[in-house]
Amino acid sequence: MPNSAELVVSDFSETDLIQRISQQLPPAPDWVVVGLGDDAAVVEPARNRLDVLTVDALVEDVHFDRRFTPPGAIGHRALAANLSDLAAMGAEPRLALLSMAIPAALPITEFDEIIAGFAALAIRHRMALVGGNLTRTSGPLVINVTVTGAVKRRQALTRRGARAGDDLYVTGSIGAAAAGLEMLKEDADAVGGCADRYLRPEPRIRMGLLAARNRAATACMDLSDGLADAVQQIASASGVGAAVDAAAIPVEPEALRWFEQRDDDPVLRAIAGGDDYELLFAVRPRNRRRLAALSRHGDVALTRIGTCTAARDIVLQRGGAALPLPRGYTHFR
Amino acid sequence: MPNSAELVVSDFSETDLIQRISQQLPPAPDWVVVGLGDDAAVVEPARNRLDVLTVDALVEDVHFDRRFTPPGAIGHRALAANLSDLAAMGAEPRLALLSMAIPAALPITEFDEIIAGFAALAIRHRMALVGGNLTRTSGPLVINVTVTGAVKRRQALTRRGARAGDDLYVTGSIGAAAAGLEMLKEDADAVGGCADRYLRPEPRIRMGLLAARNRAATACMDLSDGLADAVQQIASASGVGAAVDAAAIPVEPEALRWFEQRDDDPVLRAIAGGDDYELLFAVRPRNRRRLAALSRHGDVALTRIGTCTAARDIVLQRGGAALPLPRGYTHFR
Repeated sequence: MPNSAELVVSDFSETDLIQRISQQLPPAPDWVVVGLGDDAAVVEPARNRLDVLTVDALVEDVHFDRRFTPPGAIGHRALAANLSDLAAMGAEPRLALLSMAIPAALPITEFDEIIAGFAALAIRHRMALVGGNLTRTSGPLVINVTVTGAVKRRQALTRRGARAGDDLYVTGSIGAAAAGLEMLKEDADAVGGCADRYLRPEPRIRMGLLAARNRAATACMDLSDGLADAVQQIASASGVGAAVDAAAIPVEPEALRWFEQRDDDPVLRAIAGGDDYELLFAVRPRNRRRLAALSRHGDVALTRIGTCTAARDIVLQRGGAALPLPRGYTHFR
Repeated sequence: MPNSAELVVSDFSETDLIQRISQQLPPAPDWVVVGLGDDAAVVEPARNRLDVLTVDALVEDVHFDRRFTPPGAIGHRALAANLSDLAAMGAEPRLALLSMAIPAALPITEFDEIIAGFAALAIRHRMALVGGNLTRTSGPLVINVTVTGAVKRRQALTRRGARAGDDLYVTGSIGAAAAGLEMLKEDADAVGGCADRYLRPEPRIRMGLLAARNRAATACMDLSDGLADAVQQIASASGVGAAVDAAAIPVEPEALRWFEQRDDDPVLRAIAGGDDYELLFAVRPRNRRRLAALSRHGDVALTRIGTCTAARDIVLQRGGAALPLPRGYTHFR
């Protein structure tokens, strides 16, 4: 038997690997009737709530690079992407299913660290891991996470409710993940705010829940594919246009410096960059008080960055000119 | 623009691909409040039911080979594996989420056929596709399907309820998928019962539902990893042993001939072969009447193949001898 530092996942059975996952998890809550280890999980639905469901995948070399993404960050990001979708619907996280296609040569220590990163974030949001699937692959590591959440009827936030005249607000700061990714590509040991924002993004669960409960927002979406993409999606789903004010965009200061030093345009880079798990809200002007309450009780800043317009164009206003808003990240083309 | 026969998925945006999926689906049922195209789906829970959830993955070259698996069969099998898990819990299928990691060079016609195979099975079981994820991969095609179903409280079938003295029953016939896979490996155009059972397995939803409703079964599991594995899993989860009667095992006749012609032992091949999406039930002797009702109203035969025992060994009784039951398919080792 080689020493444990040299063991890889193919030295273990599926049952062994599931057990290594279970060991890192707290006992299942009462509402889990049948958890890990049967053909399927059985759970009590949340009382007087609608179910919210989403699935997201991280693929090695597309969504992460193992050369500069520590295993714990891979596990964290696999779940964070889904939590961000729940946040964008105003839903409370409930449970997760984890499905991994794993190269046989993945060291077992890395497997354990991926699970640890996943488990730490799940525990923080009181989510139960109720099921999953583990399989070999001849290709890159693929992590699929399905999550469910709960939301009260008529409180679910969608992309469709924005009207002309609504203001657009964004949580936190943007561009950090895009800059952080570049920093890590140059130096796998890069540390600091931006690198951390790329590696361990914080889904805006609390802001989503508050906005759903006080009905401040008419539409909401997360920025997983960038701010430019989110503005376009909300506008398109709601049948409006949008005017975004370049000067108002809260570019993360460390990212701003990074882009400027490289003669990049910080605003264009920040709005096109994916992996910022912030939220974009549309808010009716008469709901500004609710928005103020959201600001007061939230855990992150809210910045007004533009307005929804009756004209269907999506424009970036900058120094008196109005340019078409550049597109964000697209997956295939 | 190349002609459509030469187009590949990377000629399309994610939005285009999602639209090609939507086109093959019927309108969403009333209980889907927010369907495809938002950050997450929002659905009404089933009334007075528990939620049943499971996820399964098909990985190219591990679970299917594109040289002899038509794209429609890939889509069918990706969903069938999950439906079989719902059947094993006695649950009624409800919704699905489809997540695909797709090689850029996959022809768009094959993409469409995969979706068509998936959609046809989903429609037959009145399932709504409420969400998904599409991403590129540099590796093999990976299809992850998450499904949910609904089951009445206290009717969910688990692996854990078998007791010594319970009889073991299997639905339909086994070995067909293992033989079919070999036939297809020899001749990609093989036709007939076994090839079809491998390519388009029929999950035993009706039998699972009937068994859950009339409480005939004390434990249940599907045979996705083979009969030998299922017997071992039910025995282990229930804390019993099992004695399986080799002469009673309903080996599919076409598979029997195939294995015999190759000097293989049909029984050993049939019990070790995966991909038979039949069900294994444990039934208390005093519930035989309920079992008879199940037989009468079911859509597939039930065969008694053995008994649960107080002794914890798992044995195959054959010609007066009792051998340890050979293991089925394992995923990593």
